[in-house]
Amino acid sequence: MAIKTILSEDKLPTRWYNIVPDMPEGSLSPPLNPGTGKPIGPEDLSAIFPMSLIGQEVSAEQYIDIPEEVYEIYKLWRPTPLIRALQLEKALDTPAKIYFKYEGVSPAGSHKPNTAVPQAYYNKEAGIKRIATETGAGQWGSAMALATQMFGMECTVYMVKVSFNQKPYRRSMMEVWGAEVLASPTDRTQSGQKILAEDPESLGSLGIAISEAVEDAATHDDVNYSLGSVLNHVLLHQTIIGEEAQLQMEMAGDYPDTVIGCIGGGSNYAGLCFPFMRDRLAGGKDIQFLAAEPTACPTVTKGSYTYDFGDTLQSTPLMMMHTLGHDFVPPGIHAGGLRYHAMAPLISALVDSGNMDAVAYTQNQIFEAAILFARTEGIIPAPEASHAIKAAIDKAVEAREAGEEKTILFNLSGHGYFDMSAYDQYLSGKLEDYAYPEEKIRESMEKIPKLG
Amino acid sequence: MAIKTILSEDKLPTRWYNIVPDMPEGSLSPPLNPGTGKPIGPEDLSAIFPMSLIGQEVSAEQYIDIPEEVYEIYKLWRPTPLIRALQLEKALDTPAKIYFKYEGVSPAGSHKPNTAVPQAYYNKEAGIKRIATETGAGQWGSAMALATQMFGMECTVYMVKVSFNQKPYRRSMMEVWGAEVLASPTDRTQSGQKILAEDPESLGSLGIAISEAVEDAATHDDVNYSLGSVLNHVLLHQTIIGEEAQLQMEMAGDYPDTVIGCIGGGSNYAGLCFPFMRDRLAGGKDIQFLAAEPTACPTVTKGSYTYDFGDTLQSTPLMMMHTLGHDFVPPGIHAGGLRYHAMAPLISALVDSGNMDAVAYTQNQIFEAAILFARTEGIIPAPEASHAIKAAIDKAVEAREAGEEKTILFNLSGHGYFDMSAYDQYLSGKLEDYAYPEEKIRESMEKIPKLG
Repeated sequence: MAIKTILSEDKLPTRWYNIVPDMPEGSLSPPLNPGTGKPIGPEDLSAIFPMSLIGQEVSAEQYIDIPEEVYEIYKLWRPTPLIRALQLEKALDTPAKIYFKYEGVSPAGSHKPNTAVPQAYYNKEAGIKRIATETGAGQWGSAMALATQMFGMECTVYMVKVSFNQKPYRRSMMEVWGAEVLASPTDRTQSGQKILAEDPESLGSLGIAISEAVEDAATHDDVNYSLGSVLNHVLLHQTIIGEEAQLQMEMAGDYPDTVIGCIGGGSNYAGLCFPFMRDRLAGGKDIQFLAAEPTACPTVTKGSYTYDFGDTLQSTPLMMMHTLGHDFVPPGIHAGGLRYHAMAPLISALVDSGNMDAVAYTQNQIFEAAILFARTEGIIPAPEASHAIKAAIDKAVEAREAGEEKTILFNLSGHGYFDMSAYDQYLSGKLEDYAYPEEKIRESMEKIPKLG
Repeated sequence: MAIKTILSEDKLPTRWYNIVPDMPEGSLSPPLNPGTGKPIGPEDLSAIFPMSLIGQEVSAEQYIDIPEEVYEIYKLWRPTPLIRALQLEKALDTPAKIYFKYEGVSPAGSHKPNTAVPQAYYNKEAGIKRIATETGAGQWGSAMALATQMFGMECTVYMVKVSFNQKPYRRSMMEVWGAEVLASPTDRTQSGQKILAEDPESLGSLGIAISEAVEDAATHDDVNYSLGSVLNHVLLHQTIIGEEAQLQMEMAGDYPDTVIGCIGGGSNYAGLCFPFMRDRLAGGKDIQFLAAEPTACPTVTKGSYTYDFGDTLQSTPLMMMHTLGHDFVPPGIHAGGLRYHAMAPLISALVDSGNMDAVAYTQNQIFEAAILFARTEGIIPAPEASHAIKAAIDKAVEAREAGEEKTILFNLSGHGYFDMSAYDQYLSGKLEDYAYPEEKIRESMEKIPKLG
């Protein structure tokens, strides 16, 4: 059973940690304007983001204060528990200690509100009335619906049509929080109209939904766009997870040898691991960092580290990152939050500089781990988070075989209560293990722009 | 926004509170054997319950220690937070302070595991290998699946067929926790066979499912039956909620004028309010107790206080309680957990002795309250718990109108993440307000047995 370490409220960290000034010398490359090939400036982003967030995107300050108004909303679910998985340890018969930080206690059920709330706040401060954003499986859209509702703002969510039809409950959740949810492609934007003209039956894609939301923001003065991962300021906001975990590990009288998380765009893992990475980069601590991704979308384990677009329609700046190519569309795995073609530049640079390792798992591997976790620790994990569980279990088994008393810490980024049909498929033996999509990856990698 | 009062783990209450010795003189009437009309003895229950639970059912001790093994599992999610709903207060512009205790943080999403865990534990101690139980909407079945899994026991859940078909995700949840879930009526029991012989297409009912589970337990030596509400020992286990809330209110420097909860069988409200009722009955404190129920199943507000059966098929002892008649079947409201025809004898006696009031609400009233709550406090509440929210809002508005600084405490017994289709119906204006089923109630009341 579990030992739950609870921070008292007066110990809630009051600052986010910005890893940029601590990154290895020369490991970061600036985003480029695809037209000029030159580094972009704040003005390139100001049509869709407020200056305060652009400032955080490029900040060289090591710490940034959490505004009081954000802190007040965080307290609806933060601090989140740090839990020692004693029963899982027992089931694995391992000498390793396994801790996890549980972000599924937020009202939206994942870590996403950690950044949705400050993004809504800074936009409201800048006089913005409405946020336009996209959502695939619905995690990000529901976090933004919650956040805008808390600040009395409007929210328009462009939800990929296939998910809009298949996941009506995530849509209802956003509507409960007052958001307008549209099945993308819509006829509200030129991007959507163009797609519908070509294919009136189009079921949409994340790339199309991003284009619609960005266009909505760019063409309305009082509307901005919001992104749920990848960018520096998003990862910054998530560090509240790791800052709490540092205090909680101290309360538990322990410190991790290995810090684990799943990666899609990279934000939940960055959130947990950056404060520990600070101890490695600036403090020289010997910690292993392990990121887990799906074999069906093996961005870091199989992708290139190069400049590429953040979206399919090539509307973003070029970023230096691990990528499978901007028009790579992965198979329809249940871990919808990990189906992004690229990786946050900060995470990519840490892998490239040898500070972080990555590993990839199949669907059946991660659901096997998820079931063991649910049957020992009670919580039914999201398929995304189950990649981290699988990596933690593997590390604990390794420790058993080596007879070593390792301390493992992982991020349980969300619960799986909206993913029960995936569990059904697994339990009835019908879950597909997509073969590594080698051909598709080769094709899309060829479309990565060649620079210089 | 919220103030969250978190108990440190070393303050987790270690005893349950048994209200029986503090009940008003002469307010309790013993359960009767329907055959003899005489009070039942332990032997009448020993075929389906372990002696330790039968002992708790009739105990005169004021406190009962929580076994270490149960305490260890409670710590997976307990202590649960006590939250001050500052943003809801602001929206209501009320001088009242509104606190709620949040039981939705348990892995099963409700208060039900508070009793499922000790019931599994005591049965395991008694050498029982498998628990047979019934479930309607799935809350109780999933709590018992979780609890038995934690103790390495087997679990068979007879799930009402109409829910089995309509709520596949609750079923999946139970299967993730290793339970066998059967669509009732089944052909495994004589009760089920009898129903199927009459109507092969029967969609089942809670009454039939109870009969199947009881028969399964009664006909197998190493199998026992388990009930999720109504009985004294079930309410006893739930008092962990109120014992924590007492400590947390003290930490917050406050004390409630009004204590509110929703009632179906009565267990979640009993859990929160009994420790405060102790302060009224034994300590003379002036506290108002208010129980909220659906107008579609108005057990306390419209039922009789008399001896009746706990199940449709008349297989239980006769209990003195508020009842709409044992074959009353309420309309299919979304608050499935409040569709029971009767009320816990302890709750009924408190109402009858003038220590507790009750109020009834329609579906649209409670969903209106639920939406306001979700949009202010973030959490999407279960339809059952929304009855308590509605009552708390009404009390807060009353305080505003009277210009009084009242302190209101209610139990938020579960989250609504498995109830999004109900929210959909409400938001699209399609939610039905069932008329008070006067005719049906009159008919079923006529079938209540006449004694003496």
